Amino acid sequence: MILYDLVNAKRVHFSPNSWRVRLALLHKGLPFEVKDVLFTGIADIRPGGDKLTIPTIAHAGRFVTDSWAIVQYLDTTFPDTPRLLTPESMPVVKFFQYWVQTALHGPIARMVLLDLYEGLDPADQPYFRSSREKSYQTTLEALQAGREDRLEALRRGLQPLRLALAHHPYVAGEQPGYADYLAFAAFMWARVSSRFELLADDDPVHAWRERCLDLYGGAARREPVA
Amino acid sequence: MILYDLVNAKRVHFSPNSWRVRLALLHKGLPFEVKDVLFTGIADIRPGGDKLTIPTIAHAGRFVTDSWAIVQYLDTTFPDTPRLLTPESMPVVKFFQYWVQTALHGPIARMVLLDLYEGLDPADQPYFRSSREKSYQTTLEALQAGREDRLEALRRGLQPLRLALAHHPYVAGEQPGYADYLAFAAFMWARVSSRFELLADDDPVHAWRERCLDLYGGAARREPVA
Repeated sequence: MILYDLVNAKRVHFSPNSWRVRLALLHKGLPFEVKDVLFTGIADIRPGGDKLTIPTIAHAGRFVTDSWAIVQYLDTTFPDTPRLLTPESMPVVKFFQYWVQTALHGPIARMVLLDLYEGLDPADQPYFRSSREKSYQTTLEALQAGREDRLEALRRGLQPLRLALAHHPYVAGEQPGYADYLAFAAFMWARVSSRFELLADDDPVHAWRERCLDLYGGAARREPVA
Repeated sequence: MILYDLVNAKRVHFSPNSWRVRLALLHKGLPFEVKDVLFTGIADIRPGGDKLTIPTIAHAGRFVTDSWAIVQYLDTTFPDTPRLLTPESMPVVKFFQYWVQTALHGPIARMVLLDLYEGLDPADQPYFRSSREKSYQTTLEALQAGREDRLEALRRGLQPLRLALAHHPYVAGEQPGYADYLAFAAFMWARVSSRFELLADDDPVHAWRERCLDLYGGAARREPVA
C-alpha cells in the first residue's frame, strides 16, 4: 500500500485530505509506505492515465484517488479490519464531512493559506498562488489579512463539535472514528502550515485535538509543526 | 403508547422535539395516541412524580421523557421495528442534533417565537413570555425584530445540509432516518407557528422539506399551518 502525499519545502505533510486517509489506514492497522510528491509532480504519479489528485493510494496494481473513495475501498478490500463507515453511519458521516468543509476548511483557509504558501517548495509556489488566487478571487495576502478578527466566528462555529465532545471523548463515541479524522485533519493542515493558533487552551475542542495528536503512537504529533 | 404533546390555541402541535418523536414512531410503524397538553398542564401529566418535559411518552406503565431518551427506548423496546440509531451511527447523529440546535433552532427561535407566542392558548402566554424573555434576556418583540436581515445567514448556515442532499434524497440516504426527523422537526416548528418563510423555493433544502412533509401519508402536512 502506497500513499501519495504532498509535502512542503521541509518535507512536512500538510494536506488535510491526506491526513484523513493516513489516520484511516492507521485505524485499520494497515501497513503503508508514503511517497512524497509536490503539486508539480502529481502528473508524474501515473503518466498517461487520468489525472489523479492527492490523496491517492496505490494498492494491488490499482490507483484509488479521493479520500472518500479511498475509505470505501479500504472498508471493502479489508473487511476484517475495523470499519470506518457502516451503511447506517455513512450518510451522516458524509454530512459531517460537509460540515467540516464549511465550518473548518472554509475559515481555516482564510487563516493559513499564505503561511502554507510560504512554506512550500519554491517549485510549487507559482502554481499554488495562481490556482488559489483564481479560486478565491483575491491575493493570498488579502485572503489571510485580518484573521484575528475572524477567530471568534471560527470558534463559535465549532459549537456543535464542542457539545458533542461533552458526551464522549471522540465525535465517534468512546473510540475515534472517521468523523474524528475528518475534523482533526483540518486542524493538522493548520498546525503544520502556520503558527496561528485556532483554539483557546481551555476549549474542549483543544483537548480533543490533543487526544487525536496522541492516537496511533503519536503519528500526527510527530509531524513537525510550522 | 401515548405521546404527550404541546398544542397552541388552535390545537396545533408545534413542539419541534415532539415532531422528532412523532416521526420516529411513524418510522417504526408503532401505533400511538396523542394527548394534547398546554405548557401550564405539563405538571398534571404525572402528579407527584419528577417533573416531565414535552415530549413524553407513556408506554407499558412507564413514562419516558426527552426525545433522545425516547428514541433509544423505542429502539430497545421494539427491536423488530426499523431502527432509528445504530451503535455506529448514534454518536454522529447526536452531533447532527447539536448542529440542528445551533444552525436551526437558534436562528429560527429568533424568527418565530413572537408569532408562536401569539398563537398560544391565553393560559400559556404569561408563562411562555416570561420564561423565554428570561432565557433570551430580551422581549419576544425585540427577539424577532429584524428577522428579514438574518434570513441570509440562516440559509448560508444550511450549506452542509444542502451539500448532503445533493447526493441522496434524505440526510440518512435513500430513505429517511432520524437525522432527517431532527432537522425537519425544526422546520415544522416554524411552519405551524409563523408565516415567515425560511427557505427559497429553489433551495434543495426546500425540496427535501416537501419530501418530509409527504412522509407517512402526509402526517406532517396535515398539521394546519400558521
